[in-house]
Amino acid sequence: MDYYSSQISKLIQELSGLPGIGAKSAQRLAFHILNMPLEQVEELSGAILDARKKVRYCKECFTLTDDELCPICRDAARNHKLIMVVENTRDLAAYEKTGKYEGVYHVLHGAISPMLGIGPGDIKLKELMQRLQQDVDEVIIATNSSLEGETTAMYISKLIKPTGIKVTRIASGVPVGGDLEYIDEVTLLRALEGRTEL
Amino acid sequence: MDYYSSQISKLIQELSGLPGIGAKSAQRLAFHILNMPLEQVEELSGAILDARKKVRYCKECFTLTDDELCPICRDAARNHKLIMVVENTRDLAAYEKTGKYEGVYHVLHGAISPMLGIGPGDIKLKELMQRLQQDVDEVIIATNSSLEGETTAMYISKLIKPTGIKVTRIASGVPVGGDLEYIDEVTLLRALEGRTEL
Repeated sequence: MDYYSSQISKLIQELSGLPGIGAKSAQRLAFHILNMPLEQVEELSGAILDARKKVRYCKECFTLTDDELCPICRDAARNHKLIMVVENTRDLAAYEKTGKYEGVYHVLHGAISPMLGIGPGDIKLKELMQRLQQDVDEVIIATNSSLEGETTAMYISKLIKPTGIKVTRIASGVPVGGDLEYIDEVTLLRALEGRTEL
Repeated sequence: MDYYSSQISKLIQELSGLPGIGAKSAQRLAFHILNMPLEQVEELSGAILDARKKVRYCKECFTLTDDELCPICRDAARNHKLIMVVENTRDLAAYEKTGKYEGVYHVLHGAISPMLGIGPGDIKLKELMQRLQQDVDEVIIATNSSLEGETTAMYISKLIKPTGIKVTRIASGVPVGGDLEYIDEVTLLRALEGRTEL
């Protein structure tokens, strides 16, 4: 890319290193940035560095946050005896967007995957078990409905059961608005097994 | 987004202001950045700000560069008597990628568009005419094949003709590998008009 000057090439190269951004998008983004007012570019550049520098794990639920406790764990109005276990902060955000869940979370930062060499010690499981020494009513396992997510859910439920704390798993089945015709067989069978009486 | 802490929300908000990046992608990018090593984030953040701070127009061809003259205008091996006129630096890059063009460029930074209120005075046309006072053999007009691009091409050719300098327009027609069935009628007619003897 020596037809671009070195600074522009460097910017394009840095942007194309981000996930989901190919060579074309990186070029488009770069020229957009070059045409933005300087103050806006300073904001963007600063937001990137500041967020990365200040980010840390919430000492209670291990979500990514910039304070000792995340906004959810700080919130006295939430039910701290109800813990939803998720794989990552994006999954937490997905449930928060529903606006209906009133408990707190525990973020594992991954799922058990023998294929990728990720064992129980590589995710925040020990930390979950420590939290359960406090007064907890129920643990809802909301790991993904993938092989890794299911394996992790099984493993966690086996760990928790001896403590006597209630362990539940979110339902899997046909998504709302989903057309049966386009849904895979495993999901269809799962929906059948999980049927409820009307 | 108060379930994210303020720094993370700010980062997601800044990223979603970029073109082609929706709320979901911004979130995915933000968490990718938060998980990157600090040095890499410093590189990214620095590349954005540095490129924007140092960018300027090449004083000869007006492409975006970070020096007085761009690498192409500095290159004595190129034919400086052959000037290709393009709408923007990305179009210049597209022709450079072919590796076959040996002339230099002139970047207009836009095209004439009465609809958007962009007139001949809003693009680098005066600067092109000034360049033509030097010894130039041919001007190749490579503006886009859109209404604005065609209008601009016509306007430029009328301006240049009285000077006696040769003016040409890149061919439009069926793209190589294009399936006739899926090509619009205007392009098909253009390809017919521009047919060459075999």
